[in-house]
Formats: sequence, structure tokens, C-alpha cells
Amino acid sequence: MGRFGKRDDLVIHQAEPFNAETSVRSLIDPMTDTDAFYVRGHGAVPEIAPGEWRLQVAGMVERELSLSLATLREAFRERTVTATLQCAGNRRAGLMAIREIPREAPWGPGATGTATWTGVALADVLGLARPLGDASEVGFEGADLCPETKPAERFGGSIPLDKARRSEVLLAWAMNGEPLSPVHGAPLRVVVPGYIGARSVKWLERIEVRSDPWPGYFQHVAYRLVPADGTPGPGVGMPLGLVALNSDVLSPRDGDTVTAGPVEVRGYAFAGGDRHIGRVDISLDAGASWRQAELLEDLGRWAWRHWRITLDLTAGEHEILVRAWDSSAATQPEDEATLWNPKGYVNNARPRIQIRAVIA
Amino acid sequence: MGRFGKRDDLVIHQAEPFNAETSVRSLIDPMTDTDAFYVRGHGAVPEIAPGEWRLQVAGMVERELSLSLATLREAFRERTVTATLQCAGNRRAGLMAIREIPREAPWGPGATGTATWTGVALADVLGLARPLGDASEVGFEGADLCPETKPAERFGGSIPLDKARRSEVLLAWAMNGEPLSPVHGAPLRVVVPGYIGARSVKWLERIEVRSDPWPGYFQHVAYRLVPADGTPGPGVGMPLGLVALNSDVLSPRDGDTVTAGPVEVRGYAFAGGDRHIGRVDISLDAGASWRQAELLEDLGRWAWRHWRITLDLTAGEHEILVRAWDSSAATQPEDEATLWNPKGYVNNARPRIQIRAVIA
Repeated sequence: MGRFGKRDDLVIHQAEPFNAETSVRSLIDPMTDTDAFYVRGHGAVPEIAPGEWRLQVAGMVERELSLSLATLREAFRERTVTATLQCAGNRRAGLMAIREIPREAPWGPGATGTATWTGVALADVLGLARPLGDASEVGFEGADLCPETKPAERFGGSIPLDKARRSEVLLAWAMNGEPLSPVHGAPLRVVVPGYIGARSVKWLERIEVRSDPWPGYFQHVAYRLVPADGTPGPGVGMPLGLVALNSDVLSPRDGDTVTAGPVEVRGYAFAGGDRHIGRVDISLDAGASWRQAELLEDLGRWAWRHWRITLDLTAGEHEILVRAWDSSAATQPEDEATLWNPKGYVNNARPRIQIRAVIA
Repeated sequence: MGRFGKRDDLVIHQAEPFNAETSVRSLIDPMTDTDAFYVRGHGAVPEIAPGEWRLQVAGMVERELSLSLATLREAFRERTVTATLQCAGNRRAGLMAIREIPREAPWGPGATGTATWTGVALADVLGLARPLGDASEVGFEGADLCPETKPAERFGGSIPLDKARRSEVLLAWAMNGEPLSPVHGAPLRVVVPGYIGARSVKWLERIEVRSDPWPGYFQHVAYRLVPADGTPGPGVGMPLGLVALNSDVLSPRDGDTVTAGPVEVRGYAFAGGDRHIGRVDISLDAGASWRQAELLEDLGRWAWRHWRITLDLTAGEHEILVRAWDSSAATQPEDEATLWNPKGYVNNARPRIQIRAVIA
């Protein structure tokens, strides 16, 4: 067992603050175990005494609130949602192979995972606070101080009020049926299904209803898609929010040698936003022809979709190319190189792996 | 003036039933004039006497309704929405250039347009009918008999109940501030912003609340994305619904000769669903580098976004390549050829045009 109750097989990108991705072996499970779930943090895990902890609800509301965990549990209906979280930097390693991205972690396919989350609907809490007519965003601030800003800033971000009012957005105290662990945001975190992980703020202490998006570093400077020739800075680039359609191959892995004959290929696909996966195609001839993968268990509209296909491979070298389609019939872009951006976000290029099949 | 009150410059794909697309010249206007707006129909324009017309609301509802136009106007709040409609076959010509698509019209970039629509919210009508707990779809049936099915079937389709309950979905009697014309669905049509045009059923006569998607030809057989090697048939392929992210270049046009020096390039981009356009990029070097276009007037979350950029072109041949990004930071796929499908839907490849610049 590793730090923070994690399995030893996580890929650790940074020891402090702790940043580690789920192993490919664990990603094969459609539900990600808590001890295998990725961790993305910008500051040390804060020490919070649950008995003293309170949630402040402030800003553009008719009634400000200060709620204990006990009040949250007693006042509102408990809800559970199965949701995939995905870091905006998932699959960044592919972009770093094209051109360097300084000071960012080379996340592979494992900065994503799917768990059940239990807590109360943010919408129910907002219902008691009553946002004012001009409110349009709901901001979240955690207890974690993040040294990458000078002076150190608490992690924070916001989502549109429309989204905040939807029942799937939770203030969660449990993950996979167990109390939230410190590294995942105990005592309370936000879970915003369909949005980049950065909006699912951990160690939540303050909700601020606003008329504009969160002005802090982690939304106004970071987590934005900057043009390839641009320089990250305040307000530069497109703010990220909804997760973009993505997929990856989990088995076999790039560079593997397999036995010629029937080979099972498995992976995940995630539509993002409130879309679902419509189809996943596999090509062995660089996109000239495609076969459809079998979509595995449907975990609901907020979760990724695992897929598999059995290919009959002759001995020799093969390139496996994959593309997922979302429910708008949009598919992934081909070329990773044209997606490169200075912060290395949103690599959702069609995954491709090279494998060798040999006679058993 | 042409048939059905249309300008003479529409590109007519079929005389009967009338199918015609907006000219590129008219697409340059961010709001599409009614006499320039595209028409896609599967049957003859039905003759309807407004005084005798009634809207039936039936199926899985607590209370069936039969409403006159006068009752609709008196009972519910009037609403106006600016929305882009886009046929699922928009830009099919690009796919037909790759491989033939029999019995389908070679739509260019003009099977789309943006208008204001005025009527009542479908949600308000459903509020009086009260869908039952098991209801999940809302179907629409028009008065138009469509000879492409044997026997001829009325045009119809359905949308999810969740979408039907959103205030932007209208039962509209006016377009661009004027009473709906016969060719656009008078006396009443559905307008489903963000969805393929086929769901905005014209000449609406019947709303059917259902527990499953519309079983008629135009949803169960047509308007589905069939794999390239598949054969269209009942239930084959992905049902279309949300419009996929798309864009096109309107000026100059492919093959044009322009004067070397500053050249203004203009076009449209449409995110589809409830997404918006985040950025539009232009490349003159096949995607090796990109510049950002200026996004023109924001017509609201249900409309396309026009864009422009001034390029400084030397004398010679140039290829202009464009890609739009939606609010999830997803962008368009590169290669039109790999999007080919038997019915020729959803060509949302990055547009590319070849032009020649000459010394004035």
C-alpha cells in the first residue's frame, strides 16, 4: 500500500503535492476502486477537523448560509451519482512527445476514473440560499493552499448557474460507498459530472454565487486552451469546462508483443458534458476501413463507456487506430500534433498503438 | 421571386417535393432572411385551413388535449428564440465527391440558416397535458405525406422529454417576425434548437408523448449514421439528434481568384446541442500553424457564429484550412473521406478551399 491509501501501482508524477495516475491495469475495470483512483492536487492535503468544518454559502444570494456537515446530512436528500472525473491534462504525454511542455506532469491515460459519489445536490443547497437574479456562476473554494501562485492561493473554480442547478452536481462526502478519504477532499468535495476535474473542487469550504466566472488563477490563468503560439496569462485562451470527447486503448499497450490470432482490444471512451458515446470504431489500415467495437456496460449518462473488440491479427506489425463518436455524431480529431497547446490540455486525438503479433 | 416566395438565387435540389438551399451570398448574413432560408421537405407542402386546424396532444399524458391556434395563442406565454436550423445532410456534397450517395441531394453549405422563431414553449403545453412517469420521449407528426415510404407516411420524429421540457423548444407560428409561410410549416411547426432540422417538424398536427423514440421511417431508418460498410435499415446505425460541431468558409469560395494582398475570409461555425463556439482557427500551411479568426456578433446560445479574418496573401495558389472549437474544447475531424457514410449525413470535416491570388 502506498501513500494516502493508494495501491503501489499508481504512476506517481509528483510526490508533493501528491499527483498520481491510475495504472492501466486498474483502468480496465469500468468502476475504479478508490485505492486505484487518480489524484490531481495543486497543494498539500489540508488537515481539516470535521467537527469544526463549516461550509459557507455567500455572494449573490438572498440568504447566506453556514452549514455543518451534520446539517447538510439532515437537511437535504442524500443522492448518489456514478460519474467519471477526468483531468484536463489526461493524455498530455502524447502532446509532450511532440514538443516539450515545461512544469506540467506527463499524464498518460490514467488521469481519469469512475466512482459513485454520495452527498447532497448543490441545487438543494442553492435552493435555500436563493441566488439573486443577476447571478450566473457558482464558485467553489477549497482549503488547499497552492504554492504555484505567488502569494499562494486556495484552489477554486466556478461553473455556470444553469449547471449548478442540475441534480447531478453533488456536494459529496462519500466515494464508492465509503467516507471520502483526505486525499480525495474530505470532509466534502464538489462533483461536477461532465466537467473537467478541476471544477470538482476538493476540501470545499466556500461556495460563492457570482455574476462572472471565478477570477482565481486556476480558472483565469490555468485550465485554459491557449493557441499553440500563445503565452498563458490572465484571460488568455478558451476557458475549459465541459470535457471533450475522448478515448484511449488500455489493452494491449503501445509496443506490446501479442500472440497472432484472435486478440482482444479494450479501452474506454468518454463523451463529456451530458453527451453519451454513440459508437467506437477500430481501424487496422490507418482509417481506410473501420470495424465497430462492442460497447460494454452502460454506467449512466455521466460515466465513460468501456469497449472491446476481438481482432484476428496475422504475424507482423500492426497499428490499431481508434475513434469514438458522441451522441451528436461528432468524432475525435486525427492528428495529435495539431492539438498541441502550451499547457498541454485536452489531448483527445484518436489513439493509435503499434503492436507486434508473433506466432505462438 | 421564385416558388414559395423564395429568392431566385436558392440552389434547387429537387422541384417536388421542394428542396433548396440558401445561396452562399445570403449565408453571409448572420440572420437569414426568410426568402433566402433553406427548405428541406420529404413531401408536398400540405394545404391546411388554419381555422380547422387543431393540435392533438396524446400518448402518455394524464390529459389529452386538442387545441386550436387561437387557444394556443391565448393560453400560453409567447416566446421568441433565435435559433439556427441545420439539416443533417448539410455539406453532403463533400462526401459525394468521395463516393456516390444515391437518391440523396448534394447539399452544399446552405442547408442551414438562422432565424427568430415565435410561438409558445412546448414545455408549457406539456405542463397542461402532464406526461406520465414512464414517458421519456416526445414525438411530433406533421401533415405532410412522404412518398419515399411505401405506403406513404407522415413525416415525424421525437426528442427526449428532458429536452422537450426546456424553454427553448418552441411550437412556432412566426419566423423572423412574420407569420410562418406554408413552405416553412404553417400554421405551426416545432423548433428544436441544437438538434438536426428533421426534429423541427413542420405542419405539426400531433404531439405524442412516448416511452421510446419515434418508430417512423424518418427516425428509425433515415437520419441515422450508418457505418461506411453498413446498409441502412430499421434500427441500423446511430440515431442522429444533436447537431455536431461544424463550420464552413463562405467567402472566398473554393476555386476563386482573388487579388493578392489583404483578403478577408468569412464563414460560419455552429457548435450544436447547447454548446457554443469557443474559437475558430485558420491555417495556410496545412495545419502546421494557425491563426484565430475574429468571432462576429453573438446571437445567443442557439445560433451559429459567423467569423472573419484578414489574410495577407502573396500571389500564387493557397489552401485555406479552417477548424472550429466548441465549448468543450473539441474540434472538427480533419479528413472528409473517413466521415463518408451511406446516407451522407454529418459531414463536419474541417473545411478547406483552394484559391489563387493574382497581382491586381
